[in-house]
Amino acid sequence: MNEFDLIERLREIVNARTAGLLTPGSVGIGDDAAVLSVEPGRQLLVTTDTLLEGVHFPFQSAPFDIGYKALAVNLSDLAAMGGQPVCFFLAMTIPQANTEWLDAFAQGLEHLAAANSLYLAGGDTCSGSLSITITAVGVVDCGRALLRSGARPGDLVVLSGTTGLAGLGLIQYQQKQEIDPAAWQAFTRPQPRLALGRALLGKATACIDLSDGLAADLGHILAASHVGAELQLDCIPCPQALSNLDPQLRSNLQLGAGDDYELCFTLPPEMKVQLTQLAEAGGVGLTVIGRITAGSGLSIKRGDGTEFLPTRAGYDHFTSGRR
Amino acid sequence: MNEFDLIERLREIVNARTAGLLTPGSVGIGDDAAVLSVEPGRQLLVTTDTLLEGVHFPFQSAPFDIGYKALAVNLSDLAAMGGQPVCFFLAMTIPQANTEWLDAFAQGLEHLAAANSLYLAGGDTCSGSLSITITAVGVVDCGRALLRSGARPGDLVVLSGTTGLAGLGLIQYQQKQEIDPAAWQAFTRPQPRLALGRALLGKATACIDLSDGLAADLGHILAASHVGAELQLDCIPCPQALSNLDPQLRSNLQLGAGDDYELCFTLPPEMKVQLTQLAEAGGVGLTVIGRITAGSGLSIKRGDGTEFLPTRAGYDHFTSGRR
Repeated sequence: MNEFDLIERLREIVNARTAGLLTPGSVGIGDDAAVLSVEPGRQLLVTTDTLLEGVHFPFQSAPFDIGYKALAVNLSDLAAMGGQPVCFFLAMTIPQANTEWLDAFAQGLEHLAAANSLYLAGGDTCSGSLSITITAVGVVDCGRALLRSGARPGDLVVLSGTTGLAGLGLIQYQQKQEIDPAAWQAFTRPQPRLALGRALLGKATACIDLSDGLAADLGHILAASHVGAELQLDCIPCPQALSNLDPQLRSNLQLGAGDDYELCFTLPPEMKVQLTQLAEAGGVGLTVIGRITAGSGLSIKRGDGTEFLPTRAGYDHFTSGRR
Repeated sequence: MNEFDLIERLREIVNARTAGLLTPGSVGIGDDAAVLSVEPGRQLLVTTDTLLEGVHFPFQSAPFDIGYKALAVNLSDLAAMGGQPVCFFLAMTIPQANTEWLDAFAQGLEHLAAANSLYLAGGDTCSGSLSITITAVGVVDCGRALLRSGARPGDLVVLSGTTGLAGLGLIQYQQKQEIDPAAWQAFTRPQPRLALGRALLGKATACIDLSDGLAADLGHILAASHVGAELQLDCIPCPQALSNLDPQLRSNLQLGAGDDYELCFTLPPEMKVQLTQLAEAGGVGLTVIGRITAGSGLSIKRGDGTEFLPTRAGYDHFTSGRR
């Protein structure tokens, strides 16, 4: 398979259903650049993320999972801004153009692309160490995007779903333990919380998706909003698979492990009554885990009032080890 | 230097001058996604290209040159659509976060970014084999983008600048010959023809930038426009550094070597009188090298009427050798 066959195959698998998705005047894959029309009153959201073999997914991962996750982590960024995804660009570097691998990879992309009515609008292909960079494009009503910078003292800190499962899956994999199916599912098939992000428009004061870990990512909201936060450790929901772990390890996974792709957002306290409705619209459980304070930095309190310090404060590509 | 220091340093070098560049309501680097406002009557152009060490630039290339070229090849795609660049996204994978390397790399980006008033709007950083993926965003008036699909029989085929120099530079480098300075300049610092692209809006019927080689890239216009073309070999301008080469090698470089990033476009014959004015607006020489025909495929005629067949019809990442 040569480069043009490869691109053609990707288009067939990912874009078969997309004829009606291009807005009038838009031009998708196949020219020097994509041409995107933006409706009046809307803004574009653009985000890009790279997934490397051996760093973001284990060597020899299933190609379907690689395609799925590469798109999922980008859609998660759009979700965190309250965006409606429109299309994506794929810059893929693969060791060789193997049809079976490519088809499964493309099906992983297509699974999420079809579920969210988005199309492949362009890209680039090279031969080399496996690396997938996706740039996702979404839209949002003008001035309504959920930023990190709007949290105010007194706001509730709310978490969607649970955290720590993906981290558990990775640890079990790395340590060649029996892998909990729910943990592996969380690690390989994160659910971008797009419906929740859109439901939060005009309600949440700040929002972020959890890629590096709850403590580290909430820290970005605090820094951007110039506020602090106090979390109640006992309020952070614990998935079943973590319930029998040593409490320190469990809390470290919940607060320090990455790859969950849940949303953490802040909500004015008077909106607490809307949480049930927001959870329903988002299709995911929501839990108040703490409050924004007037100070700075994150404080995590145990039930007995003592301070909990997570041992891993997010993943740093230049100081952390490889997977 | 950790990941956040690295991003901060990139922002400082590349974005120091960009406070005034964000359109009202836009949000640049630092959130989950960039938020881009699009003026009414304008469309977005989005393109993405990856540069790999050992494939698109030699191992141990100067970091300034890598940064420059990574942005240049993306701007060249916007040029080929007639776009005005707005911002770019940088997904970089580098072996280690070395300050000196990073500063020079960022200065290479900034050189072109400043010259074209564009800003770094987001990105991603990882540790691994050197690979740079840039996604560039531009704007164009609605419905005016230069596509590949509009060439009509009788149109002139026009080339900006010359081709073959970048290919010569690469060959001389690979064969450890003395490298012609003009050839090395062409290979390492291609000029994206943005001013020319904009000057061609409403005039050229089709346009493409030359990354894979004149014959291969013109072939994309022919396929998209369902036409053929006849080129006159003697009309293709020859740069000084190629003039003493064996004629077959010279023509192969001019027609088959990639990396020139000139524009090849088609123009209705009645617009021939405007060529001087277009060349002036574009800041680059323009040469009519052939004509679009009603057939299909590319025919290249020597002065004696015989057919010339270039030996390398563009670069294919999955069937061609590594650099």
